[in-house]
Amino acid sequence: MTTSQTRETLERISVPTLVVDVRRAESNLERMLARADGWGVRFRPHFKTHQSADVARLFSGRGITACTVSSVRMGSYFAKHGWDDLTIAVPLNLREVAELRALSSLARVSVLVDSSAAVAPLAAGELPGASVWIEVDCGYSRTGVRWDDGEALVELARAVDAADDVTLAGILTHAGRSYATSGAEEVLRVHEESLAHMAHAKSVIASARPAGAPLEVSVGDTPTASLAEMMDGVDEIRPGNFIFYDLMQLDLGSCSESDLAVAVACPVIGRYPERGEIVVYGGAVHLSSASREDGGPTFGCVVEPAHEGLGELRLDAPVVRLTQEHGVIRAPSDVMERVSIGDVLLVSPVHSCLTAAVHDHYLTLDARRLGKM
Amino acid sequence: MTTSQTRETLERISVPTLVVDVRRAESNLERMLARADGWGVRFRPHFKTHQSADVARLFSGRGITACTVSSVRMGSYFAKHGWDDLTIAVPLNLREVAELRALSSLARVSVLVDSSAAVAPLAAGELPGASVWIEVDCGYSRTGVRWDDGEALVELARAVDAADDVTLAGILTHAGRSYATSGAEEVLRVHEESLAHMAHAKSVIASARPAGAPLEVSVGDTPTASLAEMMDGVDEIRPGNFIFYDLMQLDLGSCSESDLAVAVACPVIGRYPERGEIVVYGGAVHLSSASREDGGPTFGCVVEPAHEGLGELRLDAPVVRLTQEHGVIRAPSDVMERVSIGDVLLVSPVHSCLTAAVHDHYLTLDARRLGKM
Repeated sequence: MTTSQTRETLERISVPTLVVDVRRAESNLERMLARADGWGVRFRPHFKTHQSADVARLFSGRGITACTVSSVRMGSYFAKHGWDDLTIAVPLNLREVAELRALSSLARVSVLVDSSAAVAPLAAGELPGASVWIEVDCGYSRTGVRWDDGEALVELARAVDAADDVTLAGILTHAGRSYATSGAEEVLRVHEESLAHMAHAKSVIASARPAGAPLEVSVGDTPTASLAEMMDGVDEIRPGNFIFYDLMQLDLGSCSESDLAVAVACPVIGRYPERGEIVVYGGAVHLSSASREDGGPTFGCVVEPAHEGLGELRLDAPVVRLTQEHGVIRAPSDVMERVSIGDVLLVSPVHSCLTAAVHDHYLTLDARRLGKM
Repeated sequence: MTTSQTRETLERISVPTLVVDVRRAESNLERMLARADGWGVRFRPHFKTHQSADVARLFSGRGITACTVSSVRMGSYFAKHGWDDLTIAVPLNLREVAELRALSSLARVSVLVDSSAAVAPLAAGELPGASVWIEVDCGYSRTGVRWDDGEALVELARAVDAADDVTLAGILTHAGRSYATSGAEEVLRVHEESLAHMAHAKSVIASARPAGAPLEVSVGDTPTASLAEMMDGVDEIRPGNFIFYDLMQLDLGSCSESDLAVAVACPVIGRYPERGEIVVYGGAVHLSSASREDGGPTFGCVVEPAHEGLGELRLDAPVVRLTQEHGVIRAPSDVMERVSIGDVLLVSPVHSCLTAAVHDHYLTLDARRLGKM
């Protein structure tokens, strides 16, 4: 038996550590690139998932030059690492306009607005050169102007058009309802409905502007980008989670088990054969408290190491309870029998974005450290 | 009308910021000190809640010299800030023995064991001078030797006694079942049961050791420490959350609304009167995903600012949905009417330990910065 590279890497771990299977991430990226190419849309991946300049190099290596971020601070981090075309995909925070102005000296900055209150600083010239997207709510009810509120859409478009030195780039939505579905079929229905709503919103705005004024359409969420057949009327997609995927996406049918690209390597600190449970050093501060339903809430599950990278997913070995530092795993007999205190178990997370957010670096399974903001 | 100190502080905030009402924290500390004094027990507060050397100064200022931590890294942080008597209240992680040995040159270190596998490095002299506690499971089923498994308890006590250069300090439990109760009455039942189980475990171990060999009893969780009348047979308590409390503790009856000492100050980025909702920049990465049931999961609620510190809790203004950066607040009409985009709302968290864990500092409501690990 040859020594496994993955096991060698795991041997070096002493505390809960976020590990990434780079080959899986690369293959997830290739697949999404091919989809974007097939649709003929611009690909502006969301970097809130990985928050890593090193992971971002996978993207730049494949010719991607634009990205999406979820905070000004994240935008500044990526700008310092050479990313010069950033969309901040959260409604403009009026308290960060000065920081945004500073950022726009390093990168082309696009911002979102959904109210005239947010347009005021743009009209006052506080963000010269900014590209502005009107966020549209296609039924998710988080942020955005409702797709069927034509009056508000037109009013906002006119306000942006009237502001000096900023450009109305288009309309943007996040079809977050796709996450609340029961699977692929429903995801596709959400997608089709969103595209129809965006087409409607676009035509309403276009009819109130000079003929030929450009107005792009940007959409973005991993379930629809992973499952959709068509992207009619779309100019840009912004999925993010697809680079790692996670158990939530697996439940939605957006990915397969062999696409799951991150895990948290957790030392085993307790073993309780009489109740069939193993306790790892790896709790809510390492995995996040995100849960999925599996006859009760579960917070991740074991994934086996492969020779190079991650291996078989063990949905039959879920994390059934989670406190600040402890994760309790319901262990099938084969796992219980072979695991000793002091071993390391890999735990596949429910929501990889939130799991990545609480770590300060990644370890590749060939033991390279990847930096994070 | 005089200018409010709190509002002045909040005016300076541009991103989600963890704020602390120091007077409430001080008063929570005074009350717990008085309870510990009344019971005549040693008070070894758990610092995993605040993870702050500056907050820890409130404790040292009141004569506390010993604390509990939940990781070796946290122990090292507090040791560097002068705390020289630390219990690491998670079962010994065999992968951190070298780090623990280094830490024990700075502080008296106490560790937990619940298996002979964990005693092995102690027996091998890898942690000279360590004080060892046997963790007992009084029904919580996380870690620890079952209270009624006399054979395992005795075997473990003998193994520790046989190890050179380490001391068996006592038995320790976390009555975490208190968190799964419906309120004060049930918390007290869990407490009484735990104390009875600990007394039983102690007598079983004592009967197998030389007469007069000391064996202390350590218990610790905020609900029972806040609500219990008696602490019979207990030598040490280790509550942590009580310094800030939170909505979870409020639901259990462990505290009152005016004890809640932290909140996350969140800029308002969206306002949707037609659906009665406000969206703040403040999501799962700022509040944690911890939720409480209030006719559906909620992730926090608004708390009003007072002239100096936090004011009225608004359980009628809950965070009803939470994504990575966004929090959606169901806003009663008075809140909806007075709040504009660009304002700051304070959000009281569900589980303050997890909320504090994702921030890198605190801001007091008179605008002082408190450091965190």
